[in-house]
Amino acid sequence: MGFEQHVPAADQAAFPLRRADADGIATITLDHAPSRNALSDAMIAALSDTLDSIAEDRGIRVVILTAEGPAFCAGHHLKEMTARRADPDGGAAYFADLMQRCSALMQKIVALPQPVIASVEGVATAAGCQLVASCDLAVAGAKARFATPGVNIGLFCSTPMVALSRNLANKHAMEMLLLGELADAETAHRFGLVNRVAPEGEALAQARAMATTIASKSGHTLAIGKRAFYAQREMGLEEAYDYAAKVMAENMMARDAEEGIGAFIEKREPRWQGR
Amino acid sequence: MGFEQHVPAADQAAFPLRRADADGIATITLDHAPSRNALSDAMIAALSDTLDSIAEDRGIRVVILTAEGPAFCAGHHLKEMTARRADPDGGAAYFADLMQRCSALMQKIVALPQPVIASVEGVATAAGCQLVASCDLAVAGAKARFATPGVNIGLFCSTPMVALSRNLANKHAMEMLLLGELADAETAHRFGLVNRVAPEGEALAQARAMATTIASKSGHTLAIGKRAFYAQREMGLEEAYDYAAKVMAENMMARDAEEGIGAFIEKREPRWQGR
Amino acid sequence: MGFEQHVPAADQAAFPLRRADADGIATITLDHAPSRNALSDAMIAALSDTLDSIAEDRGIRVVILTAEGPAFCAGHHLKEMTARRADPDGGAAYFADLMQRCSALMQKIVALPQPVIASVEGVATAAGCQLVASCDLAVAGAKARFATPGVNIGLFCSTPMVALSRNLANKHAMEMLLLGELADAETAHRFGLVNRVAPEGEALAQARAMATTIASKSGHTLAIGKRAFYAQREMGLEEAYDYAAKVMAENMMARDAEEGIGAFIEKREPRWQGR
Repeated sequence: MGFEQHVPAADQAAFPLRRADADGIATITLDHAPSRNALSDAMIAALSDTLDSIAEDRGIRVVILTAEGPAFCAGHHLKEMTARRADPDGGAAYFADLMQRCSALMQKIVALPQPVIASVEGVATAAGCQLVASCDLAVAGAKARFATPGVNIGLFCSTPMVALSRNLANKHAMEMLLLGELADAETAHRFGLVNRVAPEGEALAQARAMATTIASKSGHTLAIGKRAFYAQREMGLEEAYDYAAKVMAENMMARDAEEGIGAFIEKREPRWQGR
Repeated sequence: MGFEQHVPAADQAAFPLRRADADGIATITLDHAPSRNALSDAMIAALSDTLDSIAEDRGIRVVILTAEGPAFCAGHHLKEMTARRADPDGGAAYFADLMQRCSALMQKIVALPQPVIASVEGVATAAGCQLVASCDLAVAGAKARFATPGVNIGLFCSTPMVALSRNLANKHAMEMLLLGELADAETAHRFGLVNRVAPEGEALAQARAMATTIASKSGHTLAIGKRAFYAQREMGLEEAYDYAAKVMAENMMARDAEEGIGAFIEKREPRWQGR
Repeated sequence: MGFEQHVPAADQAAFPLRRADADGIATITLDHAPSRNALSDAMIAALSDTLDSIAEDRGIRVVILTAEGPAFCAGHHLKEMTARRADPDGGAAYFADLMQRCSALMQKIVALPQPVIASVEGVATAAGCQLVASCDLAVAGAKARFATPGVNIGLFCSTPMVALSRNLANKHAMEMLLLGELADAETAHRFGLVNRVAPEGEALAQARAMATTIASKSGHTLAIGKRAFYAQREMGLEEAYDYAAKVMAENMMARDAEEGIGAFIEKREPRWQGR
């Protein structure tokens, strides 16, 4: 696959992540090993901007979120945060704003029209674990490890728990949150935090295989389905069915459904119009 | 077990399913192999009517939903749907009505006073997979397979996702919905979509064993419990406890609870009054 | 560990449970083997009072709930209940009050500032199984077994289902509720009802190891996190993030977070101020 670099090479040194597109797949690589890819102000801004740009890119049908270096993402940037304790208000306004920006970032992943697959080697901790939980799908390398260790430093992983508890059973989420210990890839798989465990170093290859499968679908249909999934999860059963029945009836009237069903009946490959 | 045929033999050729009752167990067999038991207008109507009739049948304490032929149920009847594109409105009104009828059918399973056990050999796809998810319990034969493949034909499985996402963890549901691939029986078991995996061809025997156990309970008590289960799932914790505490206190005053507790204390078999 | 007995020895014969504190861990031992530790009026009152007292005890950072004798807890005290059928109203007012008291007890576990770990050997049935489900974490001995068998005696486990269905997948909860059969420790582990399966007789030792880990954290932080966990579970995603972001920003301003983050950056042990 020939990866095209969207970010001009000259700007890349200052930019804590890379985006590369190929075959309808955008791969975002967190690339700031010195901070263990921590969600610094710069990283949050870069990731938010990148997701905003992907949301409007009709050529992209699926996103992979991966990372460079031994850590996938170490969560918040504690030194950057601690420096703000020198603010006149002790950092209160900054912390409130930071948590709001970080929560908005996580919700951007959920709201993105394209499915997002996390590809994790190394450790994903705190808000880094929340990133994985917030993705639609996740692949872990065999040596990947996951933790919500805020409890160890007096700062409970309260925003990560939002994503974690919408993916894991209560007692599994509580085990991670209260003990603050590292869960290995097999445990994360058993907990439902990741879909697949790949041999060490092969998470990205497996994520790409999943992405390639998804990229062969209609982007219009993927966007309809992903939006409907998270919307109906928050409704009661009757409301969810009323809503989903309308979504599906409208989906039937879309060009890609007519083409897809036609192709299926005629036993040929569909030609999607796209989003 | 001596199965009694409820539907007159003369009508059966035209009827896409069979119902047979024995020992308090109603077995519904989808029986239209030519369409892979698709949820055609006729199948939806037949299944709805059959469930309505069972709901009022106080002799039935548990229901098995199974199927004849290599497919459990292939979901919607795509050719029947596609034919309606010739309607003056391109099928819009028909599709809206169809999705509403199908969603009402799925909710009938949830609202049925009797527990429903799916017994699945072969493939259960799209709305066929939704049928399995909508049942209270499910047994899969070892070669059974499950998919929500709508994404492959441009028509996302948006109504199946309602049932699926109320049974599976988010990432497992998303894996099925976004990839559209077949999950084997073991995967379905790991995901919580089915309770048991039986040797190939023995799903029905295991479903009958479960049904026989359930049929030995008080139908009145089963109806109280099933209704309360789905009602309290949609409530917050405090509201759910207030509601369930009332349900249980009322249940204590019912004749079958007095009989059941008395029999337990006296170490004898209870004699249920029934619903 | 030197366990301190809080309840004066003279009162213990009449009291159906024991509490012993050591190293920030309160261990509550249900201790009424003749009734299989049933939730009699006396047991509900003793457990409620003990939890109230622990809630206000700032020296306790984590609680273990365990039991003496072959049964962890057999659920409601059926003979005590049946005797109230002789009341002028047939027991109706008593049963309503009992279910309300029992539900309030279960919610006290959830609302307790300290995490609660169930340590289960032997059987935990009906409201006894609900106790386990209501705890934040649980360890089972290899011979422990779990059931919601109310359906067998005509009294559906409707209040236990509230806790069960917030921990288990729907079909797993329904399997326990509709069949009323005993699930072994491995099944309970697969269902997410318990976090760990220990060799027979070693559940308490493993629960203590988990408790010791948790007791090394800031009690203030644990209380913030546990309250936030159950609060945000009942919210939609956006509301949950708004709430959790505020919780975490406030947590950052607390003394124990400043100490914990400082200690982490300086690579030293934190000194917690406590709740």
